[in-house]
Amino acid sequence: MNILAFGEVMMRLTVEEKMMLEQNDHLMMSTVGTGVNLLSSLSHFGYDTTLLTVLPDNPLGKKAAADVRKLGISDKNIIYKGKSLGSFFVELGQGARPQRVTYQDRLSSSFCQMPADDYDFERALVGVDIVHICGIALSLNRQTRTAALKLAQVAHERHKTVCFDFNYRMSLNEDNNHETMKKRYQKILPFVDVAFGSQRDLTDLLDYQVKDETELYQKFCRDYQINFFAGSQRSFQDGKKYFAGFLFHHDKIYRSAAKELTILDRIGSGDAFASGVLTGLIEKWAFEDILEFAIANSILAQAAMNDAPIFSKADVFNYVDTEGRNDLIR
Amino acid sequence: MNILAFGEVMMRLTVEEKMMLEQNDHLMMSTVGTGVNLLSSLSHFGYDTTLLTVLPDNPLGKKAAADVRKLGISDKNIIYKGKSLGSFFVELGQGARPQRVTYQDRLSSSFCQMPADDYDFERALVGVDIVHICGIALSLNRQTRTAALKLAQVAHERHKTVCFDFNYRMSLNEDNNHETMKKRYQKILPFVDVAFGSQRDLTDLLDYQVKDETELYQKFCRDYQINFFAGSQRSFQDGKKYFAGFLFHHDKIYRSAAKELTILDRIGSGDAFASGVLTGLIEKWAFEDILEFAIANSILAQAAMNDAPIFSKADVFNYVDTEGRNDLIR
Amino acid sequence: MNILAFGEVMMRLTVEEKMMLEQNDHLMMSTVGTGVNLLSSLSHFGYDTTLLTVLPDNPLGKKAAADVRKLGISDKNIIYKGKSLGSFFVELGQGARPQRVTYQDRLSSSFCQMPADDYDFERALVGVDIVHICGIALSLNRQTRTAALKLAQVAHERHKTVCFDFNYRMSLNEDNNHETMKKRYQKILPFVDVAFGSQRDLTDLLDYQVKDETELYQKFCRDYQINFFAGSQRSFQDGKKYFAGFLFHHDKIYRSAAKELTILDRIGSGDAFASGVLTGLIEKWAFEDILEFAIANSILAQAAMNDAPIFSKADVFNYVDTEGRNDLIR
Amino acid sequence: MNILAFGEVMMRLTVEEKMMLEQNDHLMMSTVGTGVNLLSSLSHFGYDTTLLTVLPDNPLGKKAAADVRKLGISDKNIIYKGKSLGSFFVELGQGARPQRVTYQDRLSSSFCQMPADDYDFERALVGVDIVHICGIALSLNRQTRTAALKLAQVAHERHKTVCFDFNYRMSLNEDNNHETMKKRYQKILPFVDVAFGSQRDLTDLLDYQVKDETELYQKFCRDYQINFFAGSQRSFQDGKKYFAGFLFHHDKIYRSAAKELTILDRIGSGDAFASGVLTGLIEKWAFEDILEFAIANSILAQAAMNDAPIFSKADVFNYVDTEGRNDLIR
Amino acid sequence: MNILAFGEVMMRLTVEEKMMLEQNDHLMMSTVGTGVNLLSSLSHFGYDTTLLTVLPDNPLGKKAAADVRKLGISDKNIIYKGKSLGSFFVELGQGARPQRVTYQDRLSSSFCQMPADDYDFERALVGVDIVHICGIALSLNRQTRTAALKLAQVAHERHKTVCFDFNYRMSLNEDNNHETMKKRYQKILPFVDVAFGSQRDLTDLLDYQVKDETELYQKFCRDYQINFFAGSQRSFQDGKKYFAGFLFHHDKIYRSAAKELTILDRIGSGDAFASGVLTGLIEKWAFEDILEFAIANSILAQAAMNDAPIFSKADVFNYVDTEGRNDLIR
Amino acid sequence: MNILAFGEVMMRLTVEEKMMLEQNDHLMMSTVGTGVNLLSSLSHFGYDTTLLTVLPDNPLGKKAAADVRKLGISDKNIIYKGKSLGSFFVELGQGARPQRVTYQDRLSSSFCQMPADDYDFERALVGVDIVHICGIALSLNRQTRTAALKLAQVAHERHKTVCFDFNYRMSLNEDNNHETMKKRYQKILPFVDVAFGSQRDLTDLLDYQVKDETELYQKFCRDYQINFFAGSQRSFQDGKKYFAGFLFHHDKIYRSAAKELTILDRIGSGDAFASGVLTGLIEKWAFEDILEFAIANSILAQAAMNDAPIFSKADVFNYVDTEGRNDLIR
Repeated sequence: MNILAFGEVMMRLTVEEKMMLEQNDHLMMSTVGTGVNLLSSLSHFGYDTTLLTVLPDNPLGKKAAADVRKLGISDKNIIYKGKSLGSFFVELGQGARPQRVTYQDRLSSSFCQMPADDYDFERALVGVDIVHICGIALSLNRQTRTAALKLAQVAHERHKTVCFDFNYRMSLNEDNNHETMKKRYQKILPFVDVAFGSQRDLTDLLDYQVKDETELYQKFCRDYQINFFAGSQRSFQDGKKYFAGFLFHHDKIYRSAAKELTILDRIGSGDAFASGVLTGLIEKWAFEDILEFAIANSILAQAAMNDAPIFSKADVFNYVDTEGRNDLIR
Repeated sequence: MNILAFGEVMMRLTVEEKMMLEQNDHLMMSTVGTGVNLLSSLSHFGYDTTLLTVLPDNPLGKKAAADVRKLGISDKNIIYKGKSLGSFFVELGQGARPQRVTYQDRLSSSFCQMPADDYDFERALVGVDIVHICGIALSLNRQTRTAALKLAQVAHERHKTVCFDFNYRMSLNEDNNHETMKKRYQKILPFVDVAFGSQRDLTDLLDYQVKDETELYQKFCRDYQINFFAGSQRSFQDGKKYFAGFLFHHDKIYRSAAKELTILDRIGSGDAFASGVLTGLIEKWAFEDILEFAIANSILAQAAMNDAPIFSKADVFNYVDTEGRNDLIR
Repeated sequence: MNILAFGEVMMRLTVEEKMMLEQNDHLMMSTVGTGVNLLSSLSHFGYDTTLLTVLPDNPLGKKAAADVRKLGISDKNIIYKGKSLGSFFVELGQGARPQRVTYQDRLSSSFCQMPADDYDFERALVGVDIVHICGIALSLNRQTRTAALKLAQVAHERHKTVCFDFNYRMSLNEDNNHETMKKRYQKILPFVDVAFGSQRDLTDLLDYQVKDETELYQKFCRDYQINFFAGSQRSFQDGKKYFAGFLFHHDKIYRSAAKELTILDRIGSGDAFASGVLTGLIEKWAFEDILEFAIANSILAQAAMNDAPIFSKADVFNYVDTEGRNDLIR
Repeated sequence: MNILAFGEVMMRLTVEEKMMLEQNDHLMMSTVGTGVNLLSSLSHFGYDTTLLTVLPDNPLGKKAAADVRKLGISDKNIIYKGKSLGSFFVELGQGARPQRVTYQDRLSSSFCQMPADDYDFERALVGVDIVHICGIALSLNRQTRTAALKLAQVAHERHKTVCFDFNYRMSLNEDNNHETMKKRYQKILPFVDVAFGSQRDLTDLLDYQVKDETELYQKFCRDYQINFFAGSQRSFQDGKKYFAGFLFHHDKIYRSAAKELTILDRIGSGDAFASGVLTGLIEKWAFEDILEFAIANSILAQAAMNDAPIFSKADVFNYVDTEGRNDLIR
Repeated sequence: MNILAFGEVMMRLTVEEKMMLEQNDHLMMSTVGTGVNLLSSLSHFGYDTTLLTVLPDNPLGKKAAADVRKLGISDKNIIYKGKSLGSFFVELGQGARPQRVTYQDRLSSSFCQMPADDYDFERALVGVDIVHICGIALSLNRQTRTAALKLAQVAHERHKTVCFDFNYRMSLNEDNNHETMKKRYQKILPFVDVAFGSQRDLTDLLDYQVKDETELYQKFCRDYQINFFAGSQRSFQDGKKYFAGFLFHHDKIYRSAAKELTILDRIGSGDAFASGVLTGLIEKWAFEDILEFAIANSILAQAAMNDAPIFSKADVFNYVDTEGRNDLIR
Repeated sequence: MNILAFGEVMMRLTVEEKMMLEQNDHLMMSTVGTGVNLLSSLSHFGYDTTLLTVLPDNPLGKKAAADVRKLGISDKNIIYKGKSLGSFFVELGQGARPQRVTYQDRLSSSFCQMPADDYDFERALVGVDIVHICGIALSLNRQTRTAALKLAQVAHERHKTVCFDFNYRMSLNEDNNHETMKKRYQKILPFVDVAFGSQRDLTDLLDYQVKDETELYQKFCRDYQINFFAGSQRSFQDGKKYFAGFLFHHDKIYRSAAKELTILDRIGSGDAFASGVLTGLIEKWAFEDILEFAIANSILAQAAMNDAPIFSKADVFNYVDTEGRNDLIR
């Protein structure tokens, strides 16, 4: 099974020792991004993975590519051009103090500056079974959204399974008009087979008026001939945090149990969930098992540092089997 | 609004990686003290702040002054003299293992060795609205308590708002007679407008016999013409820790709700509470809002490393608004 | 009181910042092992301790010996020979993510390669009151189990109190036949006065068929004339972890209350419990007090980094007296 | 004496332990830039300094401002706007392995995006004696060069001493036409009193054809009515590196002796030299002493980590007096 | 061009901050070995590389494989089996204090325990142009030397270019008889095309009696039909260290100039030289240029941390072109 | 051979990564002092060593004692009392930038506050062959100099070999009158057998007027019946630093060759020299060999981090044999 992901690679800089930016000059660098995170997890589950992206043509780009390889992802589709890498800073949280993320401007990055026509999607898709596209490309600029759309179309025509993550974020679209963004999403969805998103993406972004959740997903999946729609959500009860997921397929919503969260580093929880769902679909597991696995992968990922999950199937099953009570593996 | 604080600057040395002193030779240094902590928080809330203190006239004193400036506090009233800085070691705790603080002798510090007459309080008070004095000065030695008393008197005569934190600690007064200490506190209180302390400070240190809490604070505030008396306290229930505060003004006790504590580093919780209360008084907020803000500031501070709080008003309001459930800020 | 322990010293390499092996190249090294852990705790409780072991005759062995001395253990019975030290890697856990331990092959270590006849047990036992032997020696190879057996016998003949910890681990005995292992344990037990183990050690390893726990321990202790049998166990309730212990003596089981666990680093919990029990027996405390102390020591040890506990009696009593609620010691 | 500097603040990320980017994820962050470096040094020499710049209006900008204050520079003229900070990576060198600097795109930074008209130069110049402008502003974009030019003009009209550092770098001007760049420099120079640059800046950038160095500087200074022209240069001999400087004033070139370099971190050597020269001019020292002091400051800065020099006058004189042989200061 | 290397992967643990083992518990882990080092350098020069080795089937092996991929080396020929990785400790040197390496026993490693028959050399060689074998395999045990010999033979028969590095070390052969070792080397040499070694390898190990260096290499190359014989050597003069190399081909010795060494970390100097020579042979450069390039690569590698060189051709040419004087690359 | 040293233990705090105090909050702690340094070296040379000192009775004192044991020194004569430990900060140097040491006030330390009468010197001397006293005790306060004098006298009467290090430092004696200090030294010298000091100690402190070095030492040794007088000195030539030593015995000065210094951390060079000399005297080596060994030990110590040397005799002989050219020990 060969999965290709298209998306931006970012440099994450985490302040050490759970301190805040003003408190500590020591940072840990890691290479992340929706595509990187998803493929890292899938690679650790045993699949062949390839990242299609653009990195700066300098020591920073080389370093990012080395990290990508280290995560088990092939770098053969990485293009080196330009000189900037998008970056963000992370201050880890503790209890009542939330984790804080500070993004720098990312539009000047090598990825965002890449002309859509310069990609050779045909070649990149040779031997690929599944293509994953991160919806953030629709928010960035004309180049990235043209490229995402074109890749979705070409992959669809080549009968690849096309996965798409809404990844819609208000903060990235302060300057984008609601109708504009809605149209961009509507344009890519007809090429999509597996969509990751939330109820709110359908009601607030796509303006669906349906109240009943099942009917809503039904309508959405029929409108765009989407085979699977899945998402995760967090909840609070009695001072504790929980994490759960759903999977919609053939007119039915499957739901996982809500599992308690013990967060070390929250970023990438959605990517960990998505890679768990994809794994289950690849392996044709029962839908309940898929959700249990995907939630477990995401809960482990949130209890570990950095965005890119590196758990094996055995690690995830260990959590499932022990109901998360295991506190030592020898 | 310009706040001046008078008090000792100390060097805090924290063992890294949550380890104990015998386990790890790697320490993180930070510059702290009641005055530093209070002003750091007030500076991050947007006020002008100045520290009146004495630092060693060597690279160590320069380093401490650099840290003070970094926290947003003016160093224009720092005096460089002598060669020692008081210091203490911190071993962070974890669950059942308490955080441990080991003080070195501080009487040889530049601050404690400074003759009280060498301060130019008149000049330091120019342009200042609020003066904060830490009660520890009353326990240290003749020089520090003479200076504290004199500053309180001069500030009071110049119609500055005088804040005073009892900060009474048994461990610092093993060699001081109860009556002696009581008299020292009684001597400074007549100059005070805003006092920070606890019920126990009034009953055990000042020997008030009043049982009813309202009557007690009433009597205390009338005796010394104190306008506001505030304090925080911790409690335990069902294996969880909680933090709450009170504010007494015009014969009435206002109380905050008790909020759950998730401690990373407990030191400085009182200073964070005090700076929250002062902010509310400066802004003339409703007393309930003041307490909610002050408790939130202290809960965040206890969930963060080091003594000096560096949260903005927006950070604190975010905690208040989300009831502390937010686990990620982008 | 002079306690000698016999057992392997190992090098522990812990990944920093709660990260996993693939995520961080920075490791913290510490010197551990059942004997080291037990003696470290006993040394911090005020007793004279000596370690009988073999370390490589190179800078690595010198470093391990330096660490042993640092923990307060005499190195006068350390033999330097060969060139390898057993090692394992630790990835700390967080909530749902378990702590993970990866052992390297340890049979090539200087300790395992030491011919049993080359030890001078007579000399090592001079002045010693209590001898502790770790049961892992029975699993390693012929040399280590011959040495352990011989030491037990000699110590018994010299009327030393012989302590023995089952420390039976499936993972170390994948290649050992059940009957073989059973016989090895049966051979050493007649020399033992104080045994540490679990109910399962008696039923699964020694094949006792007795259902009732009291009767079981009765039979076991009578069969081998064992004076004290003690052990700890963990349990889960409502998403929380608890730790408790038992002590069997003269036909009666004494049990501690179950105390909540807040784990930073779980390894060595049994050794911390055992050193607490030994301390209580040395001091001839009431059995309830012994268990309360031993459980407290182990709970503190699990809330601290590394295997070797370094708490003083005062530290442990502080936990007992405050019921673990204390969050700051000045 | 009050010095104001105008220029971009940058975030420097240095790989720890002298390793390369691909080798180590641990970085040390520091806040630098020609203005920051120069003012840091002048502030440590005892002068009042203020930085006029634009920082992102987010935690990253707050952190940079905190660092600026820590260096002793006033942050009262810092404007918070936008969300990006220019950044570069540093891999320290060792002997034959050169130090390597990797710049990210800086045109998207808050500083570069600031409209020139939004600065209130009049207000910023109140109370200022000396203004320093970094020539890099001429290379960046229309906004930065308009601002630089306007500030030079206003400062000149207000009779401030205007200092200007050519800081001309090929790598920043790959897309800029030679004639264009030449004109930009020619436009600002008439407002300049003290210029820092090299012989090559005059011949290659400004197209002076004069061969003789004295005549060249004479012509340049007369053309633009420049009072002082100074610069530093490095040389190699017998496998050793040397550093020397010159100062041109009133038709005469003064030259320092060449001092041996022992580099830990080379960046900022020109800024350290310039702050030394300015100090000498402020103090009206003999020109030979000025150069000796400026070269000493730069040699110390190159033997220390990070760009911003933090040496006191006493530190620099110590180097001068001991001819750099002192290896321990108590 | 596709190069396959066969050899053991080792874990290197370097004490941080240039300290010694007894002084610092903080270690940096890296993944090294002659094959890893050589391929890392060749991969950074732009060639396809594959490592044929055995790693433990546990998190430690996974981590080592991740590092191998990070260096740009394909992991498709890595076999996971057993549970140990050979390891050594490094204490960096400084001036008169030599760098110190402490090896643990490596015979229990997964690589050394691999039966020679379990390799599928035919499959591993598909698509490969050059095969590199490290001579240490001849010293370790029967399995490793059988495997090395078999691979050499199979590769030779398939007309691959076979490279062989003597890598003969006394310390690894204390228990091996001189005649035995000589025969092992004599057995593999007939399959070798490119040999790396020293004059001493020929005289002391292979017992050549020829005095004249040219005649010696002539005889050696003719005896075994070796096409290229190359090696590096270090020398001392006037308190400085130098590094030089030779290449023997068709009856002629080519020699590089001796370049001054500024050592940060000496290990892997021979591998860096060898990868430089192979690059030159692949590119068919003039022999003088090959040696200049190979020596430059090794000098840079010795001025950088860790064994595996990560310099690009541009980095090496920069050293060559500037004669190592460049101290800053922007 | 059993050596006892009397002197203050100090906490050294070194800024990491060769940075300065204002640049980095990360410090490395180590436990040092003339006695600690000397005994550490002697312990690593194979002798039994004991430290007689006073440490604070708190976690800081326990940590210091643990470090003392780790260095191989017995802690049986350590007294726990008071709560402060003398401390100093170290900023490592680089080339032209000198290493900088900042002392805090040490008179409030547990050692300095110890009443001289509370020591039980008789008991401490049981089994001891050699006693070492650090001259700094004469500068600190009445208690320390009374104790030093009393110990010297008692040891002399018990026929122990008494060693004394002048360790005279101007900076510690700014408030002490020349005549006063001279008398203190004159009072202790009659009990001394082996003295460490410099020519200047005799001329400037003791006011000897003799010009000729041999005559000077002759007179000094005769006046006080001193058997050996030794010292080290540093020199500069052609931009390089050198280190050499002398030993005076029976009217003759023996001198070592001057060896080149490559300094990582200069502190403790005199203690390393002294321990080398004592070793040679214990072993009754030829005087030339003693000096060669002592200088080698000190040169290695200055090329290593921290004050306390931890080199074995083999390490030192390796330097002697290879003339310091060895750059790798396997």
